[in-house]
Amino acid sequence: MNLFGTAGIRGDVDTYVTPELALAVGGAVAETIVEGAVATEGALDPEIVVARDGRVTGPALADAIAAGAAAGGARVRRAGMLPTPALAFASRGRYGIAVTASHNPPHDNGIKLFRDGVEFDRDAEAAVETRVAEGTGSADWNRWTEPESVAVLEEYREAVAAYARGFGAPLDGLRIAVDCGNGMAALATPAVLGDLGAEVVTLNGNVDGHFPGRGSKPTPETLSDLRAFVADANEGIENPGRPGTDAGFAFGIGHDGDADRIVIVDADGEIVHEDTVLAILAERYTRTSEAADPVVVTTPNASGRIDERVREAGGRVERVRLGALHEGIAAVREAASEREESGDVAVAFAAEPWKHTHTRFGGWIDGGCSAAVFARLVAAEGLDALRAPVTERPYRKENVDCPDERKEPAMDRLATALPEAFPSADVSTEHGVRLEFPDASWVLVRPSGTEPYIRLYAESDDVDDLVAETRSAIETAVTSV
Amino acid sequence: MNLFGTAGIRGDVDTYVTPELALAVGGAVAETIVEGAVATEGALDPEIVVARDGRVTGPALADAIAAGAAAGGARVRRAGMLPTPALAFASRGRYGIAVTASHNPPHDNGIKLFRDGVEFDRDAEAAVETRVAEGTGSADWNRWTEPESVAVLEEYREAVAAYARGFGAPLDGLRIAVDCGNGMAALATPAVLGDLGAEVVTLNGNVDGHFPGRGSKPTPETLSDLRAFVADANEGIENPGRPGTDAGFAFGIGHDGDADRIVIVDADGEIVHEDTVLAILAERYTRTSEAADPVVVTTPNASGRIDERVREAGGRVERVRLGALHEGIAAVREAASEREESGDVAVAFAAEPWKHTHTRFGGWIDGGCSAAVFARLVAAEGLDALRAPVTERPYRKENVDCPDERKEPAMDRLATALPEAFPSADVSTEHGVRLEFPDASWVLVRPSGTEPYIRLYAESDDVDDLVAETRSAIETAVTSV
Amino acid sequence: MNLFGTAGIRGDVDTYVTPELALAVGGAVAETIVEGAVATEGALDPEIVVARDGRVTGPALADAIAAGAAAGGARVRRAGMLPTPALAFASRGRYGIAVTASHNPPHDNGIKLFRDGVEFDRDAEAAVETRVAEGTGSADWNRWTEPESVAVLEEYREAVAAYARGFGAPLDGLRIAVDCGNGMAALATPAVLGDLGAEVVTLNGNVDGHFPGRGSKPTPETLSDLRAFVADANEGIENPGRPGTDAGFAFGIGHDGDADRIVIVDADGEIVHEDTVLAILAERYTRTSEAADPVVVTTPNASGRIDERVREAGGRVERVRLGALHEGIAAVREAASEREESGDVAVAFAAEPWKHTHTRFGGWIDGGCSAAVFARLVAAEGLDALRAPVTERPYRKENVDCPDERKEPAMDRLATALPEAFPSADVSTEHGVRLEFPDASWVLVRPSGTEPYIRLYAESDDVDDLVAETRSAIETAVTSV
Amino acid sequence: MNLFGTAGIRGDVDTYVTPELALAVGGAVAETIVEGAVATEGALDPEIVVARDGRVTGPALADAIAAGAAAGGARVRRAGMLPTPALAFASRGRYGIAVTASHNPPHDNGIKLFRDGVEFDRDAEAAVETRVAEGTGSADWNRWTEPESVAVLEEYREAVAAYARGFGAPLDGLRIAVDCGNGMAALATPAVLGDLGAEVVTLNGNVDGHFPGRGSKPTPETLSDLRAFVADANEGIENPGRPGTDAGFAFGIGHDGDADRIVIVDADGEIVHEDTVLAILAERYTRTSEAADPVVVTTPNASGRIDERVREAGGRVERVRLGALHEGIAAVREAASEREESGDVAVAFAAEPWKHTHTRFGGWIDGGCSAAVFARLVAAEGLDALRAPVTERPYRKENVDCPDERKEPAMDRLATALPEAFPSADVSTEHGVRLEFPDASWVLVRPSGTEPYIRLYAESDDVDDLVAETRSAIETAVTSV
Repeated sequence: MNLFGTAGIRGDVDTYVTPELALAVGGAVAETIVEGAVATEGALDPEIVVARDGRVTGPALADAIAAGAAAGGARVRRAGMLPTPALAFASRGRYGIAVTASHNPPHDNGIKLFRDGVEFDRDAEAAVETRVAEGTGSADWNRWTEPESVAVLEEYREAVAAYARGFGAPLDGLRIAVDCGNGMAALATPAVLGDLGAEVVTLNGNVDGHFPGRGSKPTPETLSDLRAFVADANEGIENPGRPGTDAGFAFGIGHDGDADRIVIVDADGEIVHEDTVLAILAERYTRTSEAADPVVVTTPNASGRIDERVREAGGRVERVRLGALHEGIAAVREAASEREESGDVAVAFAAEPWKHTHTRFGGWIDGGCSAAVFARLVAAEGLDALRAPVTERPYRKENVDCPDERKEPAMDRLATALPEAFPSADVSTEHGVRLEFPDASWVLVRPSGTEPYIRLYAESDDVDDLVAETRSAIETAVTSV
Repeated sequence: MNLFGTAGIRGDVDTYVTPELALAVGGAVAETIVEGAVATEGALDPEIVVARDGRVTGPALADAIAAGAAAGGARVRRAGMLPTPALAFASRGRYGIAVTASHNPPHDNGIKLFRDGVEFDRDAEAAVETRVAEGTGSADWNRWTEPESVAVLEEYREAVAAYARGFGAPLDGLRIAVDCGNGMAALATPAVLGDLGAEVVTLNGNVDGHFPGRGSKPTPETLSDLRAFVADANEGIENPGRPGTDAGFAFGIGHDGDADRIVIVDADGEIVHEDTVLAILAERYTRTSEAADPVVVTTPNASGRIDERVREAGGRVERVRLGALHEGIAAVREAASEREESGDVAVAFAAEPWKHTHTRFGGWIDGGCSAAVFARLVAAEGLDALRAPVTERPYRKENVDCPDERKEPAMDRLATALPEAFPSADVSTEHGVRLEFPDASWVLVRPSGTEPYIRLYAESDDVDDLVAETRSAIETAVTSV
Repeated sequence: MNLFGTAGIRGDVDTYVTPELALAVGGAVAETIVEGAVATEGALDPEIVVARDGRVTGPALADAIAAGAAAGGARVRRAGMLPTPALAFASRGRYGIAVTASHNPPHDNGIKLFRDGVEFDRDAEAAVETRVAEGTGSADWNRWTEPESVAVLEEYREAVAAYARGFGAPLDGLRIAVDCGNGMAALATPAVLGDLGAEVVTLNGNVDGHFPGRGSKPTPETLSDLRAFVADANEGIENPGRPGTDAGFAFGIGHDGDADRIVIVDADGEIVHEDTVLAILAERYTRTSEAADPVVVTTPNASGRIDERVREAGGRVERVRLGALHEGIAAVREAASEREESGDVAVAFAAEPWKHTHTRFGGWIDGGCSAAVFARLVAAEGLDALRAPVTERPYRKENVDCPDERKEPAMDRLATALPEAFPSADVSTEHGVRLEFPDASWVLVRPSGTEPYIRLYAESDDVDDLVAETRSAIETAVTSV
Repeated sequence: MNLFGTAGIRGDVDTYVTPELALAVGGAVAETIVEGAVATEGALDPEIVVARDGRVTGPALADAIAAGAAAGGARVRRAGMLPTPALAFASRGRYGIAVTASHNPPHDNGIKLFRDGVEFDRDAEAAVETRVAEGTGSADWNRWTEPESVAVLEEYREAVAAYARGFGAPLDGLRIAVDCGNGMAALATPAVLGDLGAEVVTLNGNVDGHFPGRGSKPTPETLSDLRAFVADANEGIENPGRPGTDAGFAFGIGHDGDADRIVIVDADGEIVHEDTVLAILAERYTRTSEAADPVVVTTPNASGRIDERVREAGGRVERVRLGALHEGIAAVREAASEREESGDVAVAFAAEPWKHTHTRFGGWIDGGCSAAVFARLVAAEGLDALRAPVTERPYRKENVDCPDERKEPAMDRLATALPEAFPSADVSTEHGVRLEFPDASWVLVRPSGTEPYIRLYAESDDVDDLVAETRSAIETAVTSV
């Protein structure tokens, strides 16, 4: 059985993420914990905080998880509706289960597992998977527990606001438009920004599991209302949304359904490229790190502009496969520990496009925290000034046909063919083949995990040429194997 | 699959009444309701009240039921811990699910289904059984619901007290000892009797799913503490427990784990025979009935002393198989309706030993209501006076070996052999073979549903002779088929 | 003491609506109920549902009310956050207390009392006032109660949607923009419209007691974001927001903090005059009334266009003082009863500008219900067609200086002077002096209750002349007394 | 104003402990905390856990406290019904308010304040008193909070059981009878003893704020049912209640309404003298202390047998006024700190008759903890063996008439007269005049705080002579001043 996909357990509630599965996963996590608590995990409470996002199917699935976990012998604390980052926050020192399908459509749902503030790694997922597959049953009747409720939201919001106060400047009346997408962001971002002094106007701030306002994934299209709203409000205003003006918006924010993702919209209603947002935060985190060797963890599809800004700030970038930032963070720390350099190395920031782990705050992806920190930076420096040093080269993403069975030999061939074709580039073959050129332009070639394609990502001032040449190399490789 | 035994769904939580089963039953009931609500059940709310008794495994099972019912599209209201009669009370106008194994040992649990205050009949159970077997899955995602909580206990207690005030006399200080058996009775009987003016001392009034104080089934043995407590307290006191005396107890009450059963202990610490309690209540309900033709429904194993008292009071007795009082009530009403006599006939009372349905109050078995009504009768007349008119003949219950495959032919033979052997008796063969003699002594022969026996119940001044003769007839029948 | 202002109990939480006052009011209401329950109010449960709007000070005030009410001996059910109309809905058959300051600024709060779905009348308020003033204390300790929670929202939303389905046409995809003003409307209007098939985009749909998005009172100014949002979205679209277009909005809705008020914004982002909205609804309710003599109750400041439409539809209009629709409804019914015409008369609708009591649905002001019904009418006929028959004459409101002590003699004088000055007008002196002209233009003169003014309202095609002439008459009256 | 009596805030709910007072105290505590949190109390959370015992008036008073505290700006966590020791446990690291009148009659209630697990000292009480008197009002509206619920009971029970496992031997089946007195002990002692392996039968284990089973103060009279129950059950049994016997009870336990007090009943149904229980625990805590200088804190009315046992075990006794154990503990620690001996000194135990502070477990009085520790000691050694080394001399307590105005001069005179009369005694005048003789007999003379008496306590083999001689000295002093 392959319970966990690349996005964890996520899918249709009719056929995949059913109450039966939720019950089984709750039981499996409890069993893992209860056994672990006896053996090696002594430092953590054998307690699971269970929360859900605003989906229609959330209450029943959360009840099923609670039933399974309580029958499995773990202490269960019900936290109601929460942004996934708030659940992760509450899982510190214990365990957490979030019922969320993030930005999937409303008929889907999912289950995300946390341990001490961090998503389960592959080993922990595998342990759960095995237990679910084996159906190992409940604990002895005498060890079943009674779920109780716990309140998380207020402490989370206060913690985010307190953390963000370490950056930038007070918001004092900065006007910000936030499109919550009818999701969990409605419970955190507007209130946190308000606490920090902003004047916030929301779109789709009512929690509604049908996501009536827009698709739950924030894209240029789904954010069209927000973009128009900001652009129209700012029309003819010189310095919109600045404290005291009572007119226009300094910028806009869009979140996904469970508030781990963030998109920034500028005062013209245009999306700020996700890699630029990432580069801005990465640079500041690197610059303010107290470590001798600050590291930013990101993913192969993230732009070279990040590397540029991090290097400029005195740090270095490490890449890890998509969806595995938490594993990347652990790997950097472990490597430093092996070199006996733990004291010098710090993961200053870890992010993939739209998804930021503020490592000083906690080990989870947190869109609300991004909103708060970013707003404080905008208040201090202005969005234009933040963007100015980031070089935004043209970017393209393409698919090249490749039958599944040819993917591996084709990639093997490309591992030597591409470096030969681009001798000036630095080569990394850890996650596909990634070439980086002296001017920070880059190209990434990797097989799709789910579709009959090899994917090509490129960013360069001459992106057309780079794509053409790379595509040709891929096609050659695919046909010749 | 045979989901419902004679006691409904009840058994070990490891292998039978698992969270998985609870989830499935919750879903099946919801599905039945939701479809029914559209079709024929329009008068009832498509809402399920879910409660549990104090067993350790109750919270997880109730969560699982709620998950299944919410995913099945029914509105769910969680009522926490309740006596089963209180849950039945709350199910009027809607549906109810009680998580309880009544008097079973602590590692067992069970699920009891109610519809408009009455246990599911066989057809409704069969519908649930089929759905559970077929695993028909959840409702469309869009129709899943969110369980909410509801408070029931106070209204139930007030209703019982108000009802009981229609009988007997005020308790004003009558002293009563109640052994709650660490079960749900602790939430109702002492408070109701207190509201009615009694001074109540409890044994095992702390709710504890381990049933540490005594076995959860009230028997002469498990009630030994209560019996000794009452007897010792009353030693040397002439009129113990009467209002104002502040000494001794007028009588004692024992309940089972979920408070549907009641046992009465007299001032000497002796158990009042369950059939005598039944006869006392039956007589009073018959006498105070406003119907032309008041009927008491009871079971074949219940004593002829009931018939005597009911006849004396101007009513008649109907018998129905064990565990099916609710079906017996419905049958009497239906028969009256067919004869176009609905206006004249009333089921004044329906009870099997220890389990009383106070039909004027509601259609469920209610030990707390029995406690309240009985206490008011004792306050008015005294326990001795209540017992005086009831003839208590010697009673015996025996088992005769009989392999399962011979039960049916043996019973067929006995249906003619026994009437021949006892020509003076009236014969009923509806539930086994029951003979009733002119002096109200009786004998009942019926096959056990679960064990390799034919059971024999007899009550007579010459019980030894009656048993010997009957046993001989049974043995002959068993060996000759 | 004068506890209840024209808006009930409402004001600053530091000096007026303190926890101490809330405690006292809770106690006074309970005392009224408990005594009433014994005497004349037997039909109602002695139970108070307590809810609050989203203000920061709501939880503490609701706790204080619950404390007072429970110590006063009433049964208390806590309903959490609710729109005021939903609390009123839940108060049917019992009592309700809403902690809300409606559209007041965030540092204010208030307390609104309901009895069987209707606001307390003046006598009931006076009884509470007296008890609060006297500080009569708690009930006997033995009668204090324990507050429990109750779930209301889902049933309210379902009831509103079911009711609205009796009007107009299905929404199927009609696109509507709703500005919830960070208030309670967020819990009802978007979900109800969604259930009815609309596609809803919200502004300020996150509940936030600071009302960060806009002032909590919906005015042309505070709704400027909504108006711009709708207008910009609709630019260049021919038939915006119609089912299937996926572009633009058919209209917009603005609510106040507790969702009793509603403002309609047309597809051009312009406010539809509140009297026009009222006239549209009044006409339809009159037309569909089954009574021989359908009555619409409104207030003196409401436009003659209402009278026009109601007459056209075969009904008549009665006026009652501002803030007293519930008393007007009762008065109409009582008058009919005195004439023994109860069977013929029905209050088809009762409304003052922005605030509508849908009498067929219930006796409270309900902005969510207005939204649902209005949307169904728009879906059926289009907003332009709804407005077409309503004559909108120019409207003006002015203040004329008048010291408090002169108000009464001046008004006395005007009661004769104005009819003399305008002999063609029909005169009503029940609530100030109101003149209505043959062409349905009108002028109302009444003393301010709180400020040193006489207020003048006029609506006419020649509003300047009418105002000038009336003002002159008022000034003469003020100076000559 | 003198808000706090010797038992804290406690009295009638009509005239003293009203909802109004509860609201004011909640507000005053919050104000103290919020200001403190900014200034000196940084280490504690500005959070108050609010719980109540089972009294009828508890829910309303707890609501009022929550209202006051939330309006005062403190974070509030509602813990429902709890034994006072469990609330104290939950107040560690924060604050706690218990709504309880301990063993007072049912129409009383009270408020007890905790800070970091310890009762408020006199300074903290005075600060609250001042604020209540001044009625300083609520916090700024913007800082009001929303109370949330928190679950405490399970963790408390687990902690007590874990702590008790450090003493004596496993209970495995030891049979114990517990009279919970319808109070909060029902939520803790039986379950804790059960977890530790005992078989517990309870009397009055149903929580009922009317205390129907017996007076809420455990005395020889109110415990007569328990005593008879144990004695009768043990009749004729040699070694009653020992593991495996399934007959009789090893001993009995009685608690007061909020479970801080404990009374031990021996196997014959006789009360074990409270000072003997205290001496048994004191000796063991002293013996197992790791400190060089273990101290037991007790009160002047506590017997010399305690001093004997503590000295025997290598420790010393310090006395502090009644009701001030927490202050005594603090004083011992402070004195050690001033002598720079903090490392050597430990308060091994602190107790007054019936009320034990298990200082290794926490700084509050905890009858449930006493039950658990004592049961483990009985399991290891047997109750008779525990009592054997404790010398129980005859004890008497008398009152000598003395008008209030003469109390002070009379006590002054006695401070010299008594030592002169008893030259062989050691004299302490810190809390009244206490004389201790070489054979550990003693007499204490002190003025009553509330009644016109001087109280005399004496314990001696010749108690009659000692009382007669002392009474004579007191009478002389009273008449001669």
